[in-house]
Amino acid sequence: MDYQLIQFLSQFVTADRLALFHSILSQRTNYLTVVLEDLYQTQNTSAVVRTADCFGIQNVHVIENKHIFQVNPDVVRGAANWITVNRHNGREMNTPEALGKLRREGYRIVLASPHEHDTDLENFDLAKGKTALIFGCERPGLTDWAKKEADEFMKIPMVGFTESLNVSVAVAVTLHHLTHQLRHNSSIDWHLTDREQQKLLLEWLRVSIKRVDLLEKKFEELHKQGVQ
Amino acid sequence: MDYQLIQFLSQFVTADRLALFHSILSQRTNYLTVVLEDLYQTQNTSAVVRTADCFGIQNVHVIENKHIFQVNPDVVRGAANWITVNRHNGREMNTPEALGKLRREGYRIVLASPHEHDTDLENFDLAKGKTALIFGCERPGLTDWAKKEADEFMKIPMVGFTESLNVSVAVAVTLHHLTHQLRHNSSIDWHLTDREQQKLLLEWLRVSIKRVDLLEKKFEELHKQGVQ
Repeated sequence: MDYQLIQFLSQFVTADRLALFHSILSQRTNYLTVVLEDLYQTQNTSAVVRTADCFGIQNVHVIENKHIFQVNPDVVRGAANWITVNRHNGREMNTPEALGKLRREGYRIVLASPHEHDTDLENFDLAKGKTALIFGCERPGLTDWAKKEADEFMKIPMVGFTESLNVSVAVAVTLHHLTHQLRHNSSIDWHLTDREQQKLLLEWLRVSIKRVDLLEKKFEELHKQGVQ
Repeated sequence: MDYQLIQFLSQFVTADRLALFHSILSQRTNYLTVVLEDLYQTQNTSAVVRTADCFGIQNVHVIENKHIFQVNPDVVRGAANWITVNRHNGREMNTPEALGKLRREGYRIVLASPHEHDTDLENFDLAKGKTALIFGCERPGLTDWAKKEADEFMKIPMVGFTESLNVSVAVAVTLHHLTHQLRHNSSIDWHLTDREQQKLLLEWLRVSIKRVDLLEKKFEELHKQGVQ
């Protein structure tokens, strides 16, 4: 049914648009995902969503403990339409549940921290499996809850007086490096599955077509007639 | 005389501090420099200064045509004390003079632009010589003046809907990649000269010592007595 709905809705976007969707879908990955733990500066979260789009990371997770995420349209530049932002909220402390869920989905939980001395970004072994990269507040940093859930720590090597990069900058440096390694220096199959691509294509069509609700209603009617 | 002054002033900082200065000096480079052309969001310039410190780039150039740079202390996190920020202003259009000066100092002028299709960041040949990386406003982008002065264009390959990264993010991705290449995958001598290191050490001592003016006066007196 989804496949037929996609066929139907595809008529209502230009061929160029559809080609762009397919081209971008072929570059999307869920092999890496980014998790932001309770950032208080919403422009950082918006900047991360934009960067994720640029480097082809489809899923961003936002853990909201004390701080609620609001999209900053000037910073995000429309990328929120194309990226799947998974919000983890509803409790006072949502970190263990969010990271536990990611682990059950097969992700290694890797905490990015300049203060923990584990692997350098450049030596990070992508082949070990799907990776969730967890970034925290600049101050006070990642919570103890996150540290308790960590499989590994990773840091960006730095050589100056300043002890940390801005968090949106740290995410970008990490995603640039790891997606480049993934695409060009690995044999890992990092692509979305066909099912994931179909699902996303449907979402993107829905975002792109005005009054798509009316068209979907029409499709349902046609489909019902066809089935009868 | 500078050397003796450095010896004299070094007494007034802790041994740990002095060791940190020397350690950081040994990682500093002028082989790469960053030039920001007339950014209007001053937090971006401040973020770049912080990133330059983290990756060991000593000199940042700020071209101020319409927009005056002011340090944003929350973003820069003290890095402005350690980085040499060269401001190019005083005229209505300062780009040709600033880039001309850099060329006379031996720099290749490389414009970072997602809209020009030249070299990908990952294929950029560092061995061709000292490089000044020019970044412009997100909108309207680099001026025609800058484009006229360009030796080369460079872009960060991207695979999403969004056409460009935030400028402070683009600088960080570029500096991380190129400094890593420089330090770990090249035989280029990228270190500061002894003279540059001495000059910088003196500056850092001056920033670090309270009422250094009184001490310098005292040093001059001692030096005069010694000479007589």
